[in-house]
Amino acid sequence: MSINSFGHLFRFTTWGESHGPALGATVDGCPPGVRLEPAMIQQWMDKRRPGLNKNTTQRNEPDTVNILSGVYEGKTTGTPIQLMIENTDQRSKDYGDILNTFRPGHADITYHQKYGLRDPRGGGRSSARETASRVAAGGVAREAIKAIAANVQIKGYMTQMGTKKIDPAKVDWDQIDQNDFFCPDAEAAAEWNDYLAWLRKDDHNSVGAIIEVVARGVPAGIGAPVYAKLDTDLSAAMMSINAVKGVEIGEGMAAAALTGRDNADEIFMGSDGPEYSSNHAGGILGGISTGQDIVVRFAVKPTSSILSPRKSIRMDGSPTEVVTKGRHDPCVGIRAVPVGEAMMACVILDHLLLDRGQTGGVRGSIG
Amino acid sequence: MSINSFGHLFRFTTWGESHGPALGATVDGCPPGVRLEPAMIQQWMDKRRPGLNKNTTQRNEPDTVNILSGVYEGKTTGTPIQLMIENTDQRSKDYGDILNTFRPGHADITYHQKYGLRDPRGGGRSSARETASRVAAGGVAREAIKAIAANVQIKGYMTQMGTKKIDPAKVDWDQIDQNDFFCPDAEAAAEWNDYLAWLRKDDHNSVGAIIEVVARGVPAGIGAPVYAKLDTDLSAAMMSINAVKGVEIGEGMAAAALTGRDNADEIFMGSDGPEYSSNHAGGILGGISTGQDIVVRFAVKPTSSILSPRKSIRMDGSPTEVVTKGRHDPCVGIRAVPVGEAMMACVILDHLLLDRGQTGGVRGSIG
Amino acid sequence: MSINSFGHLFRFTTWGESHGPALGATVDGCPPGVRLEPAMIQQWMDKRRPGLNKNTTQRNEPDTVNILSGVYEGKTTGTPIQLMIENTDQRSKDYGDILNTFRPGHADITYHQKYGLRDPRGGGRSSARETASRVAAGGVAREAIKAIAANVQIKGYMTQMGTKKIDPAKVDWDQIDQNDFFCPDAEAAAEWNDYLAWLRKDDHNSVGAIIEVVARGVPAGIGAPVYAKLDTDLSAAMMSINAVKGVEIGEGMAAAALTGRDNADEIFMGSDGPEYSSNHAGGILGGISTGQDIVVRFAVKPTSSILSPRKSIRMDGSPTEVVTKGRHDPCVGIRAVPVGEAMMACVILDHLLLDRGQTGGVRGSIG
Amino acid sequence: MSINSFGHLFRFTTWGESHGPALGATVDGCPPGVRLEPAMIQQWMDKRRPGLNKNTTQRNEPDTVNILSGVYEGKTTGTPIQLMIENTDQRSKDYGDILNTFRPGHADITYHQKYGLRDPRGGGRSSARETASRVAAGGVAREAIKAIAANVQIKGYMTQMGTKKIDPAKVDWDQIDQNDFFCPDAEAAAEWNDYLAWLRKDDHNSVGAIIEVVARGVPAGIGAPVYAKLDTDLSAAMMSINAVKGVEIGEGMAAAALTGRDNADEIFMGSDGPEYSSNHAGGILGGISTGQDIVVRFAVKPTSSILSPRKSIRMDGSPTEVVTKGRHDPCVGIRAVPVGEAMMACVILDHLLLDRGQTGGVRGSIG
Repeated sequence: MSINSFGHLFRFTTWGESHGPALGATVDGCPPGVRLEPAMIQQWMDKRRPGLNKNTTQRNEPDTVNILSGVYEGKTTGTPIQLMIENTDQRSKDYGDILNTFRPGHADITYHQKYGLRDPRGGGRSSARETASRVAAGGVAREAIKAIAANVQIKGYMTQMGTKKIDPAKVDWDQIDQNDFFCPDAEAAAEWNDYLAWLRKDDHNSVGAIIEVVARGVPAGIGAPVYAKLDTDLSAAMMSINAVKGVEIGEGMAAAALTGRDNADEIFMGSDGPEYSSNHAGGILGGISTGQDIVVRFAVKPTSSILSPRKSIRMDGSPTEVVTKGRHDPCVGIRAVPVGEAMMACVILDHLLLDRGQTGGVRGSIG
Repeated sequence: MSINSFGHLFRFTTWGESHGPALGATVDGCPPGVRLEPAMIQQWMDKRRPGLNKNTTQRNEPDTVNILSGVYEGKTTGTPIQLMIENTDQRSKDYGDILNTFRPGHADITYHQKYGLRDPRGGGRSSARETASRVAAGGVAREAIKAIAANVQIKGYMTQMGTKKIDPAKVDWDQIDQNDFFCPDAEAAAEWNDYLAWLRKDDHNSVGAIIEVVARGVPAGIGAPVYAKLDTDLSAAMMSINAVKGVEIGEGMAAAALTGRDNADEIFMGSDGPEYSSNHAGGILGGISTGQDIVVRFAVKPTSSILSPRKSIRMDGSPTEVVTKGRHDPCVGIRAVPVGEAMMACVILDHLLLDRGQTGGVRGSIG
Repeated sequence: MSINSFGHLFRFTTWGESHGPALGATVDGCPPGVRLEPAMIQQWMDKRRPGLNKNTTQRNEPDTVNILSGVYEGKTTGTPIQLMIENTDQRSKDYGDILNTFRPGHADITYHQKYGLRDPRGGGRSSARETASRVAAGGVAREAIKAIAANVQIKGYMTQMGTKKIDPAKVDWDQIDQNDFFCPDAEAAAEWNDYLAWLRKDDHNSVGAIIEVVARGVPAGIGAPVYAKLDTDLSAAMMSINAVKGVEIGEGMAAAALTGRDNADEIFMGSDGPEYSSNHAGGILGGISTGQDIVVRFAVKPTSSILSPRKSIRMDGSPTEVVTKGRHDPCVGIRAVPVGEAMMACVILDHLLLDRGQTGGVRGSIG
Repeated sequence: MSINSFGHLFRFTTWGESHGPALGATVDGCPPGVRLEPAMIQQWMDKRRPGLNKNTTQRNEPDTVNILSGVYEGKTTGTPIQLMIENTDQRSKDYGDILNTFRPGHADITYHQKYGLRDPRGGGRSSARETASRVAAGGVAREAIKAIAANVQIKGYMTQMGTKKIDPAKVDWDQIDQNDFFCPDAEAAAEWNDYLAWLRKDDHNSVGAIIEVVARGVPAGIGAPVYAKLDTDLSAAMMSINAVKGVEIGEGMAAAALTGRDNADEIFMGSDGPEYSSNHAGGILGGISTGQDIVVRFAVKPTSSILSPRKSIRMDGSPTEVVTKGRHDPCVGIRAVPVGEAMMACVILDHLLLDRGQTGGVRGSIG
């Protein structure tokens, strides 16, 4: 069962609540002999962690990862890797109101309906804080990928904030880490900055976003049709992230509007193997990688916790209005970028391993 | 491992190739005591089967489902149900060209790269013919749902063909089965008919589509956070269908452009429990059903097999042009409608069962 | 979920009832490129099939295996392999009595208690006929093992019938297929023959047996601690066979009576790697193979269906006596031999593949 | 994949090494609303923990369980429960010799062969210390069982130490916790005490044991044929415990020597449902519970670490002799008793939940 676990051979289970003593990921299936130091994971944690700048929640968590098992003298042993992150700044009093009130757009009401009870502190298990565990697992995956397929590069960035989209022609990977939004276009980043400041301070509102994650250098031939296709697993990976409402591969929803002639990625023989005239497919055919960039996009809904009042009910059914005063991100999409990257890393590693188990990793030759 | 299997407790494994002797689904986890006759499954097969009208492939397959196990005197016994569909019209000669040629947009090249060999007849395992097995499994799921949650209704329809979208206000469930396109708007259906005729006969082209599937009457409180959320599983279910490039829940990708104020589904107390002012969430919060309509949308790319020549390579790397003369659907999205419905049914049943195993099916009370 | 499925990467699902139209195995995860013809599977089916001699049930089933998918031009393609065996000799009238009566020692009563209904014809799903599907799956596994680890030999035999044990010193693999009992000692076989004839004809009774299965030539280093250890999986494999009540690895239950000094398998360096002074461990340490013979033993209880009357109850609770007049094996252990071999083959292949997915199949060097 | 995880719906993953900073169990699938305090788990930890008396290893570990997630205000929430046990007494210097030497009977050599490297401190992951995590998980299972099937009692005890067996007629549950050996017969316990003292101090040896675990009060009708039978899962559960070499259900291996007439558990109608004249089946028919005592037995081999020298090799292949001076149990079987109980509890809970997911928990009526 995969209720709180993700992956086939590289498989992690996340645990922990927003305001409990700790949270983490139990990572199973990492190959042995991979170099792994906490700092290798920490660099990714630092991209996601709260309190980094004024555009994300002011909760201040160092998100220090402790490796409790599975590593001996700086190398993985092939046994489960326990990654624990202690919570330090749980201001539960901020959340007192939500004990008996269901916040619109939150999982309060459905957790109550399913489980009959819930941990209300900061959303408990349904909090986006769970994604810290994913980023930690993704850090492990990145190191293991290096050992197996050294050319793989994984990069995520925001392509849209609210109605403001970037021009695909202006995507510059070098810009991504130069601004608070993982925005690959410096000009757009400046504009987003002003917009978000106004939204947060003046409009007491929040806004959605679109994130794109690319895996470059993935060898052709990995993926497991038909119910563990690379795109199927990526879709599940991204849709499982809090607040995600849509996932696209390559052309995505826009593929509907194309004709077969326009959508064809024509094939040519290059010096290193097959090449393609375009990448409408997003690097995946029949669930298996083509060797092109693997391109996934996902939409994050606007944060439900806003300072503007919204109508709701209490547990006893009585009407109320909810205004969320806690520390929240005006655009949760920003911190979803490193989460999307982490999930991409986990899926790619998982399929590299799975493919070895299925075929021994031998590729059919062309030319 | 879920390579060729789908689902947690209600779990099916599909098998078979496009031009092999037979294909089918091994269905595990159907509850005992469910009434099941072949005709109950056949009605859904007949919606998907090829050769029904001029807008779908002219391959003529009766797609008769044989129940080989798991049913005794018209009732399920709780043991695996084998559903076999014999292939009858395998005109393999039509596909002779593709033995050594990789068709652009098809999985020929990636199957070759992964497995080193492949069954080339009609695309083998990567053919959309595999979806017949899903529809059969979905037929079983529908009967089991009736026994557990009688109010559930599942309905799919096309909302967009190429650039031609229907007006959401004009969606009429009664129209869906009145035309060749599962189009819920009679006027749009007529327009699509002309467009597709021109595309097929004059333009030698194909076109993509968007399908929406709705599950109505699903009780609040089912779904399994955080890696088997209802939306996660639906996303995987739809993305695993051939040619699907995007999946949306509720607002989907459009959620990115909304603000938190606009996106809030406000909550009120109704006579039968909580009600909502809107359904931006698509009936799912935190991976758990709210009791509203569950709304999934997916985009199907245009059929890659077209009569217009596209550049490609042969297995030896030499250049060639591919024109597919076989019997193909100009808009595979049409036949994806019953497939999407079937996958929705399987996911809903699976989560109804899973929830019983997790919580005993007790719901937290409100009011 | 593994309700009707077995294995991790090489995974089969069995389906079908004793007296339904057919039964079979859906085999997922067989590597591509393995030569596979029906005759390769049929040879093992013929060892298990009923009606072969007077010591097994007189039901006459050819047990012809049909390969419906996953093989193209005599080679596996890496897609699911459907193995179907049609039932031809279902004399359901023999079983009329058991519709409303629970046979002692049979699953009639527990299936009824769990599912509320059952297929009573020949025990339905609980019949040992299900093991035909396992033997078919095992036939596939054997061919795949040949392609990966050519030196592996798998051999099963009976070491005990009732109270009559063979002398371990007299085990001769060449004798195994020379008698009706898969007995590795010709003298014992003759004695068993007389005993079983008397038991069946004069005593109207049945008897239990112990089967030993050996896998020789398995490379050191496969197995997946700690919940998919080689011995754990073998134990589950054997205990899942009908009528099995005990499973042993190496010394088995007798290990309890040994001291640490006696039980130690001392290690020496041989020309080809480590060698051991003895094999108390049965070829497995910490769940991982040592390179020695892997030795599994299991006990099969006596057939519950006997001609002697036993007290029982009917579905309405009323008392009755049961005398089973159907065609039954006086010693089901005999036909359990090829089943045990098949399960061993499936487990070994599964772990060969799993190990590649975990470690790439690289072995740590010694010396 | 179940490499380091066990269970279907109630599923735990253990992590941690003998001499790492901590170890634990990530428990998924515990139903919501179960009362859970650390003390409820601790009582079972205290039965297994080292250093309790002179008959077990003198390593001194308090084995305090920390509940890091999944519990809110003393009740489970249905989310993953992280149980962490910090290691406090890791005297790694005791183990210096085994860095380059393979101890006979230990997993040192096979871990090296599989993974190419290993954590040598105290056996790392292959140490029986891993079973502390199981006992913690079992503590959770016991509380959840209380909430679902209050009559269930689970009890384990040693029935044999070396060649010294207890008389089944003298089994007295009240004696079990009155001695150091979980021995249900006071007289045998005294004898075992003397024997073990001699073995440890004078003979520098160790000895094997047989443990029996009984689950009383389990409702009829749980179990999931055919690859998740109750006996199959129990067999895997017990065989996965360190040093276990054999598993028996009911009659176990002795069933081989019985005839069908002797082995029949005849059925009678009692006031509360079916009753049986005997329990050769060990409470399981066709993988499903009968309502009788579920009886499992397993053999634990003698501790491989002894003070008597045994021949072995070093990593470079050179010969050596191994004398283990560390702190070890002369009879590991003793501390396997609470581990076997814990595994029984986990399997029973898992099947209670699974059955609800499969059938809704409805039982077929008799009489």
